[in-house]
Amino acid sequence: MFGTFVDRYATDGYGPPVTVPDAIRRAASVGGIESLDINYPFWTEGLSVADVRAVLQETHLRALAITPEIYTREFRGGAFTNPDPKIRQRALDLVNEATEVGYELGVDYVKIWPGQDGFDYPLQADPRRLWELSVEGMQKVAGPHPELPFAIEYKPKEPRTHMFFSDAARTLLAIEDIGLPNVGVLLDFGHALYGGESPAAAAELCLARGRLIDIDLNDNFRGWDDDMTVGSVHLLETIEFLHTLRRAGWDRAWKLDQFPFREDPVEAARASIRMLRALHRVLDRVDDEELAVIQERQDALGAQRLVHDMLLGDVVEAG
Amino acid sequence: MFGTFVDRYATDGYGPPVTVPDAIRRAASVGGIESLDINYPFWTEGLSVADVRAVLQETHLRALAITPEIYTREFRGGAFTNPDPKIRQRALDLVNEATEVGYELGVDYVKIWPGQDGFDYPLQADPRRLWELSVEGMQKVAGPHPELPFAIEYKPKEPRTHMFFSDAARTLLAIEDIGLPNVGVLLDFGHALYGGESPAAAAELCLARGRLIDIDLNDNFRGWDDDMTVGSVHLLETIEFLHTLRRAGWDRAWKLDQFPFREDPVEAARASIRMLRALHRVLDRVDDEELAVIQERQDALGAQRLVHDMLLGDVVEAG
Amino acid sequence: MFGTFVDRYATDGYGPPVTVPDAIRRAASVGGIESLDINYPFWTEGLSVADVRAVLQETHLRALAITPEIYTREFRGGAFTNPDPKIRQRALDLVNEATEVGYELGVDYVKIWPGQDGFDYPLQADPRRLWELSVEGMQKVAGPHPELPFAIEYKPKEPRTHMFFSDAARTLLAIEDIGLPNVGVLLDFGHALYGGESPAAAAELCLARGRLIDIDLNDNFRGWDDDMTVGSVHLLETIEFLHTLRRAGWDRAWKLDQFPFREDPVEAARASIRMLRALHRVLDRVDDEELAVIQERQDALGAQRLVHDMLLGDVVEAG
Amino acid sequence: MFGTFVDRYATDGYGPPVTVPDAIRRAASVGGIESLDINYPFWTEGLSVADVRAVLQETHLRALAITPEIYTREFRGGAFTNPDPKIRQRALDLVNEATEVGYELGVDYVKIWPGQDGFDYPLQADPRRLWELSVEGMQKVAGPHPELPFAIEYKPKEPRTHMFFSDAARTLLAIEDIGLPNVGVLLDFGHALYGGESPAAAAELCLARGRLIDIDLNDNFRGWDDDMTVGSVHLLETIEFLHTLRRAGWDRAWKLDQFPFREDPVEAARASIRMLRALHRVLDRVDDEELAVIQERQDALGAQRLVHDMLLGDVVEAG
Repeated sequence: MFGTFVDRYATDGYGPPVTVPDAIRRAASVGGIESLDINYPFWTEGLSVADVRAVLQETHLRALAITPEIYTREFRGGAFTNPDPKIRQRALDLVNEATEVGYELGVDYVKIWPGQDGFDYPLQADPRRLWELSVEGMQKVAGPHPELPFAIEYKPKEPRTHMFFSDAARTLLAIEDIGLPNVGVLLDFGHALYGGESPAAAAELCLARGRLIDIDLNDNFRGWDDDMTVGSVHLLETIEFLHTLRRAGWDRAWKLDQFPFREDPVEAARASIRMLRALHRVLDRVDDEELAVIQERQDALGAQRLVHDMLLGDVVEAG
Repeated sequence: MFGTFVDRYATDGYGPPVTVPDAIRRAASVGGIESLDINYPFWTEGLSVADVRAVLQETHLRALAITPEIYTREFRGGAFTNPDPKIRQRALDLVNEATEVGYELGVDYVKIWPGQDGFDYPLQADPRRLWELSVEGMQKVAGPHPELPFAIEYKPKEPRTHMFFSDAARTLLAIEDIGLPNVGVLLDFGHALYGGESPAAAAELCLARGRLIDIDLNDNFRGWDDDMTVGSVHLLETIEFLHTLRRAGWDRAWKLDQFPFREDPVEAARASIRMLRALHRVLDRVDDEELAVIQERQDALGAQRLVHDMLLGDVVEAG
Repeated sequence: MFGTFVDRYATDGYGPPVTVPDAIRRAASVGGIESLDINYPFWTEGLSVADVRAVLQETHLRALAITPEIYTREFRGGAFTNPDPKIRQRALDLVNEATEVGYELGVDYVKIWPGQDGFDYPLQADPRRLWELSVEGMQKVAGPHPELPFAIEYKPKEPRTHMFFSDAARTLLAIEDIGLPNVGVLLDFGHALYGGESPAAAAELCLARGRLIDIDLNDNFRGWDDDMTVGSVHLLETIEFLHTLRRAGWDRAWKLDQFPFREDPVEAARASIRMLRALHRVLDRVDDEELAVIQERQDALGAQRLVHDMLLGDVVEAG
Repeated sequence: MFGTFVDRYATDGYGPPVTVPDAIRRAASVGGIESLDINYPFWTEGLSVADVRAVLQETHLRALAITPEIYTREFRGGAFTNPDPKIRQRALDLVNEATEVGYELGVDYVKIWPGQDGFDYPLQADPRRLWELSVEGMQKVAGPHPELPFAIEYKPKEPRTHMFFSDAARTLLAIEDIGLPNVGVLLDFGHALYGGESPAAAAELCLARGRLIDIDLNDNFRGWDDDMTVGSVHLLETIEFLHTLRRAGWDRAWKLDQFPFREDPVEAARASIRMLRALHRVLDRVDDEELAVIQERQDALGAQRLVHDMLLGDVVEAG
């Protein structure tokens, strides 16, 4: 989020290259950020784990999670589900390496995003085999570390036209088959939104099964993972999502994930944090019991009104 | 909007039948509604134009527009584009009748929504022929009444999988071919939204060509014409849309179009009016010149911040 | 499918009313149809179960399933999830009645489509409560009939903007909580398609858990439940879906579900049956082992080529 | 299409770098490709126009079009619509340079794809200003070359969440304002499809105004620009599109545009060419007059049947 962005058109990147230490320092300069999700391998050559730890200490930031990059060129045909067993093994090795680095950095969890696992064309793959390989891959990486959570970040598509871990319910079913208590879900608000889920209902589903490890906040136009700043399009559903987590006693950080291709990443992070604080203040004002009563009678207009009153404050007329 | 709703499942309707006079009285009971779009033929048997006029007078409401129902069973295969010339003629006759009634009621314009014009299956129709028939139909109904505006309401789909007048740009191109100064566009915010347009940009397009006759306000989840209350999902884009119209000196009524299948229609209208007033107050606070400067530099975060500050008011922190 | 269709615009219906016996006779006239899904209550007044049985015998058709209409006006606010316990009870009663009629008609299963269960607006309902009520409702209706399958037909939206049983994975998770061996899934090809699922992968998921009770075939443009004839848009994915079922030894009927609003329903059914037979012949020619080998290496172009060769036959060039 | 692909995840590319000459040789190795769309600047350092011409001669390929890369990092904030006049000028300069190179290579037209022109966030930009700048930019680059066609390739989104030239109708309206006879449209089948247009109807619209300069063929799942091989998902709509062009006497090349991230690009091109030839053979068999009669009565099932019979050939049963 604080590195450099590339896409298939601006192949020279949306900005000059940034080293890992500089990306961490950028994050620190935002103000309000306490911890980071660190990608592995570090994209800056020659950088050691000790170096990263040093920059984190210097900046008073914590490594929240480590994300093995099992979605780069080598894994373009899949990581856990790659048809080539050698590449599957390489994916497992990379996750294992990242896990060790995670221990050294003191992360809360390992984030698994098998972005190249899935399929692109009709008839390309046998869904049963993809299931088997995905379950097996997760068992192999998470099984030996029962004390360390492994969070699967699901996403409906991109870079694959059909990603394997595509939504909350499918991921929860796979987690059952994985059969390990330390495997759970990282729920990205935007992924749920553009996958057609209600992010709040998806969160409740994961919470109900005790499998919500972390969340990512951002926004989009429901057709793609635009990774925009929090609340830039969907204020109401962001509020609903936060309300769901607060009601469940959520006490983790409120994690951001955005790709500000054309905006200053530090300013974009500040905009999201500012919005997030405002929405929490809105929720502080909402009478939870009143909302519960309204929801018990499934009163759409009542629920909207309650929240709109808190949101719009003095611009709403009485009556 | 104040009548009864039916769909393909609840074929017995979402509520008991309501007569036209009662629907008008319902509208009047909302408070804040000044004028109405009247469907023709009146769905209550035996009701005369004089009867309708009387109820309008009684309720102090005005007939803003008249909408000939050229989308009922008879026209299921199309109105202007029906392959059967007899049905095409019947559609023209119905619009002509409605136009006469419109004069009697003193409407501002005739609303044309050829909901059954278009096609459903690939290869079903020759697009050139649909174009020709649509242009011809509009010329025939609007040509003889140069003083009376005819507003085409476009919509991407439903009930057809592909409606003929599907978006603002296509409708404006057809209007060129129609070649009459009194034909323009009725822009429904929700139609633009779920058709993938930016409603504000679509409005500008119509304004630039001097063809925006009226607008409809509502909201949806971008996948379908859900016809929800104003601001229930897309607060920011509703504000952007209102801003666009205000900047253009819009002085018409702010028209609603919603289908509150399961909500009380009077309460749903009140919710929308309340929201609309709040959003206008937000815009009253926005410094138009400041926004213009921000937009001149295409500053996404700046524009969002400006509006969020006005919207969220005292829940946003300074700084 | 052989009755009359209505929608929110052509409120007078897309054709003249048809009685239940006439609808059954229409189905029989198609040729190639062996069994029917019967809605309950019968929409023709005064019709007894014996009457329906008589028409079925007369037409040599079988009642495949019975579908209690728990989605009409009375249930517009929900059936199992209705906030009013009296209406919830009425929904249970109606399913129970339909189940008894199902026994009398000798159906294979009861189809449950709680089309009004879910929510429309953000914040309207507590997802945990909807889950609880849906699970409880299914337990109450299916629990007392361990020998009779109950198939839940899921659908992402319409008439609700968010339906409760929205996709295969969510429905399977709910089925776990329902905890009854006789509850499973009716997978509608089009519902999976426009919900963003791969219909074939969704079928495999249900098959893997032993929960696929029946399927519905149709087609659409991926944005809505257009209920078009089989193969009218998605030939490849229909083939993939049929292949998945055949591989699993599917021996049930190939069920159709379409809403030919503007087409002759008998001709529309014939078109689908004809297409279905052609696609089966295509699959008869596909070498299953070859396809398995191709899929094992996840070879997109190879799989497409194999099927295209069989599909396009002599128009494809050799080489 | 024969170069290297990168995206925001596999930032190290989906394959090893390929030089421009090698990419051209790759294209030549496909067989059946006669001409190419050449990007400018050439991505291989030190390569001269003479070098490119030499490789084209060596491979017996022709330069069909030249595409100035006005969508790389420098133009991430827009090319013609960039808020910075200096960058706007640089975009114009780059198009002018590319135009000169186009003359040297003997191209048929200059392709303009202002991929970074548009906006991302609500309220970010004034649509009137984007319009003005886009029209002005096109006038400046195409005005001085009345003999050379300039084709605008429209696309709904990506990399912007909202691209300026988003669909056929909007582009045609802008072309009117541009007011030059040598500016037209490049219609990409997939862009039309995922933008919610009927590609065939979009083509007719451009043809009717004499503005269709070229087309691109590919396929996708209607939600994104997946750039898959021809006919991999939408056989019927591809046939409809080809039929439309043939009927209009289309005699240009049948151009491909695909991004086979994970497939061999040469094999992917061969698959598309093979499919394209098969579909042309299908259309050779269709009786155009019969189809015209069917379309005149807008007979959905009849049109489908006619084409399915030709497509499925001997697997369809008579009767």
